[in-house]
Order: sequence, then structure tokens, then C-alpha cells
Amino acid sequence: MRLSRYFLPVLKETPSDATIVSHRLMLRAGMIKQEAAGIYAWLPLGFQVLKKIEQIVREEQVRAGAVELLMPTLQLADLWRESGRYDDYGQEMLRIADRKKTDLLYGPTNEEMITDIFRAYVRSYKALPLNLFHIQWKFRDEVRPRFGVMRGREFLMKDAYSFDIDEASARKAYNRMFIAYLNTFARMGLKAVPMRADTGPIGGDLSHEFIILAETGESQVFCHKDLVEMGAPGANVDWDNLQGLVDQRTGLYAATEEMHDQARFEAEVPDASRLSARGIEVGHIFYFGEKYSKPMKAVVAGPDGVEKPVHMGSYGVGVSRLIGAIIEASHDDNGIIWPDSVAPFDVQLINLKTGDAACDSACQGAYEALTKAGKAVLYDDTDDRPGAKFATADLIGTPWQLVIGPKGLAAGEVELKRRATGEKTSQSLDAALNRLTA
Amino acid sequence: MRLSRYFLPVLKETPSDATIVSHRLMLRAGMIKQEAAGIYAWLPLGFQVLKKIEQIVREEQVRAGAVELLMPTLQLADLWRESGRYDDYGQEMLRIADRKKTDLLYGPTNEEMITDIFRAYVRSYKALPLNLFHIQWKFRDEVRPRFGVMRGREFLMKDAYSFDIDEASARKAYNRMFIAYLNTFARMGLKAVPMRADTGPIGGDLSHEFIILAETGESQVFCHKDLVEMGAPGANVDWDNLQGLVDQRTGLYAATEEMHDQARFEAEVPDASRLSARGIEVGHIFYFGEKYSKPMKAVVAGPDGVEKPVHMGSYGVGVSRLIGAIIEASHDDNGIIWPDSVAPFDVQLINLKTGDAACDSACQGAYEALTKAGKAVLYDDTDDRPGAKFATADLIGTPWQLVIGPKGLAAGEVELKRRATGEKTSQSLDAALNRLTA
Repeated sequence: MRLSRYFLPVLKETPSDATIVSHRLMLRAGMIKQEAAGIYAWLPLGFQVLKKIEQIVREEQVRAGAVELLMPTLQLADLWRESGRYDDYGQEMLRIADRKKTDLLYGPTNEEMITDIFRAYVRSYKALPLNLFHIQWKFRDEVRPRFGVMRGREFLMKDAYSFDIDEASARKAYNRMFIAYLNTFARMGLKAVPMRADTGPIGGDLSHEFIILAETGESQVFCHKDLVEMGAPGANVDWDNLQGLVDQRTGLYAATEEMHDQARFEAEVPDASRLSARGIEVGHIFYFGEKYSKPMKAVVAGPDGVEKPVHMGSYGVGVSRLIGAIIEASHDDNGIIWPDSVAPFDVQLINLKTGDAACDSACQGAYEALTKAGKAVLYDDTDDRPGAKFATADLIGTPWQLVIGPKGLAAGEVELKRRATGEKTSQSLDAALNRLTA
Repeated sequence: MRLSRYFLPVLKETPSDATIVSHRLMLRAGMIKQEAAGIYAWLPLGFQVLKKIEQIVREEQVRAGAVELLMPTLQLADLWRESGRYDDYGQEMLRIADRKKTDLLYGPTNEEMITDIFRAYVRSYKALPLNLFHIQWKFRDEVRPRFGVMRGREFLMKDAYSFDIDEASARKAYNRMFIAYLNTFARMGLKAVPMRADTGPIGGDLSHEFIILAETGESQVFCHKDLVEMGAPGANVDWDNLQGLVDQRTGLYAATEEMHDQARFEAEVPDASRLSARGIEVGHIFYFGEKYSKPMKAVVAGPDGVEKPVHMGSYGVGVSRLIGAIIEASHDDNGIIWPDSVAPFDVQLINLKTGDAACDSACQGAYEALTKAGKAVLYDDTDDRPGAKFATADLIGTPWQLVIGPKGLAAGEVELKRRATGEKTSQSLDAALNRLTA
């Protein structure tokens, strides 16, 4: 993409209403624009990151055996009356009446609707296990939206729902999502710690939040230090036998504020291994058994022909929120530092003297070679001063900067800069292209 | 994907409430489930087609120079008060009050919001031309939603918005979208005819609808026969000089009911070339100049430093509606016939005797070989009878069926069926795999 044909409205000033660094940087880097309190437009750069995150989440869900569908944003209130949550949910639910005065709502989550879909079609245990997910916009009418996309009102969530014949099988589904979440966040360069959590309005008796440690986290968390560095198991696991990998993690103390027990923390965790920090929730998984299937009569016949309510769990990832979390975890004074896997562009190609024949020609050649090799290149072909181009590249956090100017070209050299380390090396253009496409 | 692990709730009965064939087939093929009047959940098969269509639309927009972003579904009513459309729009607009009594609405289109984004950042003609698009769910509270996804209330639309310094430049933007639309629909196997159209609530003085001819079309259309077979120009055109290609099409008579002039039709089109038929609108483009930029004060400074309202156009494609349109145009008594480019799966692999060692082994090998070659395979590994498997494959319209059974295997043969023609050929498994991956 040529910057002159792109839409990248970077801001020089730091927006005064943004109190945390990810919100400030997303506004400054031209990633988002607020359209109403807690409602954002995703400008092209932000949109590209959103798509990258969404795709990683999708791939890891599919790998764990989940099947993708897409439920609508609006739901019938009657469905929520069946589960009893329509009255319980409170003011966070955006309630809507259409022209015929039918009560609708903008879905804050989809347990009721997916249960309705399930009961419409599935009659037998033979269709199980089943895990259905979608990635769709949700709305929660937060009383005080803040922190940009970290606590917005309209937000993108991946939510999966598992259906099993009994609790033992449902726990296997839970474990698959547990491991899939560790892999998902690791692919984004994040260290996510699973923590025993409160089940809140979703309900159920087993639940874990996945927490990123960051100073600006919304809640205090407590855990054994080893959990932070334990890493993700990766894709090559036995997906039918994950209990050992899960136990390895749940065996160490980790709890959010609501679930924290200081006495247990001190008894179970040696002094030097105790970690108390701020955390950002990026995922939340629940096993809630028959909570929805029973009132909504989602039953399946077992091998014995007897019908019983299906056992369910639900599994959420805050897709739009993750972008804020990644920036909180990866930035410096000059801007964002994208992990390679989620970067909107792989390489920022900086022409130090647009209009100079040698520079234009070398840049054009590099642009074509990198694009052909499958790299996403943002080519800064604008008339801006070199200083402004460097500042923009640092601000928007492209992992590599390839800098081509007249003096260097005369000496047969270009400069390659790695955003994360700041390391700069001079070399021939060919050598730089080889490095970038290796 | 193994069918035993997928979620494909096909129906044997023809749903009684569906009056047109695409609606019936989408319900029977397990593609959609109605969640409220005009509001659908996209089950996995439907979702996969939706993604394919969306991706074709996206690629052709990008090819024509448009840049993707994503605006939220909910908008501030105040923005629409600026353009004067908040009161004009009527009951089709879904109006919402949040917990703080702020007036919101579920966007039926985005002229106001994109104009607001533009004016927030762009000050100079140097940033032009600019074309921004998004693919997002919209809501129009139709008084009588019907025909399934063809006239739903919550629907997926691609809408692009062009910004130019003057009318001459804006017409070039219009032409780029005109040609991009022809290419887009052609890639989906559709013959779309551009027709002079009424501008309706969007406004402006230049507008074309893109119409698919189908018996179940919602409106009567009139055109010169040659337009139907003229075909799309393809990607290798001079994107800066498209007037000739556009004139070639707009020079022939073509009009929707609202714009039809029978006297002109008879005067301009020879008797034998006159076509009067039912049509389905799948795209609509508008040039409306300063209609929004003037009241909303979206101005740019020209080369002379003088500020003036930017010239705009908007360009819509009904992404979810296209699925219905394609089925209307391509089906038979047994079910859907997907064009290769939008098919949810490339190949349906039918195991005639699941559990038979030779069949299972041959199918598994074929499944792996095709998947490795990049083909999307739906492997029917269920216990269903052969007849039920054939019926399902025909119903959901997979372009190729690869049928493997014990008798054929004993004779060294498998069967390959092309859904569109019904042609069946027997050959060795290797030959069939070569044919499918050629």
C-alpha cells in the first residue's frame, strides 16, 4: 500500500481525553475514531489489526474442533425471558422496540440464541460433542465507557458454545478451549495467565479468566510467578487428553480479586514466588452444565434413548479489546511495537527523497519485490520530511523499517531498522530484501 | 471438514413459510435459521458462502483503489440531524435510546458517519481522490420482511464512499466503482446489468442499479438484450480512463420500473432486442456531489487555497442478499448449484460404506490429498444411506462429488460427479484426484 493512497490520519498532539497509553496511541496512530461514548470507527490501520487478531482467534478455535457460524446482533427479548435473564440483566442490556413494538435487544452475549439453535435441530447424542462459535459485534451499555476499545460499548467478541452429553465430556470441551486460549494469546505475543474466576451473570460453577499483566489493568490479580512464564502448549497436543496440561496450570495459585483468598495464597505460594499485579482480562471460559438447556428444554436422547438436558459451556475472547491489551503490553515512548503476528504491515518502506529518480526507482523495486514475496508493505511515498516519516513509522509500530535515501544509494547502501529493538543496520538493498523475505 | 464433526442441519420437508426458491433452499440446506422477522442466524454452511462473497467484494474494491475500514453498527442521531435525514428517514430507521437517553440508531447506511470521519481529518485536496469502504451489518426496519435474506431487516452490506475535489474527478471515481461492480458480479457467476435508477433517499442526480435477471425479481426491468451478454471488462483495464467502457454500457437502454420510459424504449431499441423481465437489485451506485458535504461542512482547500465542499458518491453491494440472488439464478429441482467461486466446499467426498476398511482408507487418503492441495472438502463420513448422502450433496450444491464405494474400489474405480451438469465419470482414484486438483 502506498501511503499517499492510504488513509492514515496520524495526530501530532496527544488527545487530552485518553487516560491510558493504548487509547492515546490508537488515537494518535489513526487507528480509531470515537463516534459516540464507547462506540468507535476502526480506521484502516486499526481495521487491519482487528482482522489479524480475529484470524488468529478463528484459526485456534477451528484447530480445537469448533465450527464457525454467525448469529445476528439483534435478538428477540422473548428468548431471554425463557432463560430468565431478560429481567436479571439490568441496564447494561440495550433494549430496543421495532416499528411493530416487538421487544428486541442488542446481544451482549449469545447463550440463549445458541441454545435455541441447538434445540431446533439436535435430538441425539450422536451429534455430540459439538462446539459452535461466532465472531460478532456485541453491545453492553456500560455506565462509564472508558479506556478506548478496552471498555467500549460496541465491541467485537468471539464466543464459543459447547454441547455435551454429560459433565465428563463437557469438561473435555472446557479443556480444549482452555488450551486453545493459551495458544491463541501466545501467538499474539502475549503472556496470558489462566485464573480461577467468578462466573457473574453467565452462571455456572467452573470458570477461568485469562489475564494479561499490565500496569493499567482493571483489576488486581494474584498468582504464582511460574504461571507467567509457563508458556503455551502449542498445537501438537493430544486434544482428547488435555487434563494433565490443564492441571499443571490450575494446580498453581492464581485468582482475580473477586476470588482471592489471601490466607490460601500465603499458604500455597512461597514468598518469593508470590506475584500481585494489575491484570487485563482478554478471555473468559465457563462450564455451566444445564443452566440454559434445562429451562429452554434443549435435550438430547442418550444411547439408552432417555432424553436429558445437554451440558453446556461458553468461551469468550475480547477480540477488539485485545488490541488495546497488546499495545498496553508492547509500546515505548515513540509509539506502538506490534508483535510480527498482528502487525498491520510487515515492512514500512521509507523513501527519504520522493521525486528523486534513484530513490523512487529503488523504492519501487523494493516495494514490488517485497509484495511479491507476500509481505504487507506500507510504502511512504509522501512529500513529508524524513523526520516526520521516521516518527510516523515508529508511532504506528511496523516491525521493520526499510529506509532508502540518496546518500545511502550512492554508497550502495540502505538502512534496515527493527522497531522492537531499535537496532539499525546498513547493507545493500539486495541483502536487506533477503533479510526481510527469509 | 468431516460431516460427522460439522453442523449441517438439512431439512427433508420444504418449509411452508418460504415462498421463493432461494429461501426454501437456504432453509433446507441448513444455511440459515430465522431468529426474528427478517433477522437470521447464518449456520456454518451459510456462513462459509457469506465469507466467500464478502471476500470477492473486498478484493474487487481494493483492486479499484478503495481502502477498507469499519464503522460501528450504532450511530448518534445527532449526526443524522446535521444532514436533515433523521426526520426524513421514516419508520425504516431503527431508533434506539441508551441508558442515558442518548438518541442512537442502527445504521441503515453510512453517508453521515463517513462524512464526519472525512471532515475530522482531511483538509486539503492533496489527500484526494479517496474512496473508503466497509462491510458491516445494517438494519432497515422493513414493514414486511420476506424472501429470506433477500429482503431481511439485519443484512450485510458493502458500502463505499468516494471523495473528490470536483465533479469531473468524482465521475472517475463513479466509473471505477461501475467497472468494479461488473467484475465483482461476474466473478460470482452472475450476469449483472447496470440500469439507470432512481436515487431515492440517498439523493443525487446520477445513479445506477446492478440487476440480476430472475423470475422472482422484485421489480420489472427493461433493457437492450445485448447488455445481458456483454460481460465484465475484467481487471486489466486502465483504471484512470474508464469512460469508454462505461459509455458502451450506458449507451444502451436499460431502466428499472421507476425510471422506465416506454416511448423511449421503443424508439431506441429494435423490437427483437427489447427485453422486459423481473430483476433483483444486487448493487446500487450514486453520485450526489455536495449533498452531505455542504450541510456537514466537509470542505477541502483546493490548489488555490480556497475551501469548498468535497464531491461525494456512495456505492452499495448487498452482500447477504447476493447469496439469495445467486441461488435464484443457479439451482435445479434437487437443490443449489454453486458457482465454483462462491461454493462453501469445492468437493463433497462421499463414503458409501463408512466402517468398511477399504472405503475408509481410500476416503481418508483422498481427503488428505485434496486438503493438502488446498481444496475445501466436506467428507461425508456419516452412517447415512448412500441415497441420503447423494441427496444432501445435491441439495447443498457442492460443485464436485467424489463417490467412493466398496464395489467400485474392488474394480479400481471411483465416481466423479459434476453438480452443474450431472455428468458422472468412473475412473481410478488417482485420475479423479488429478482431475480435481488440476
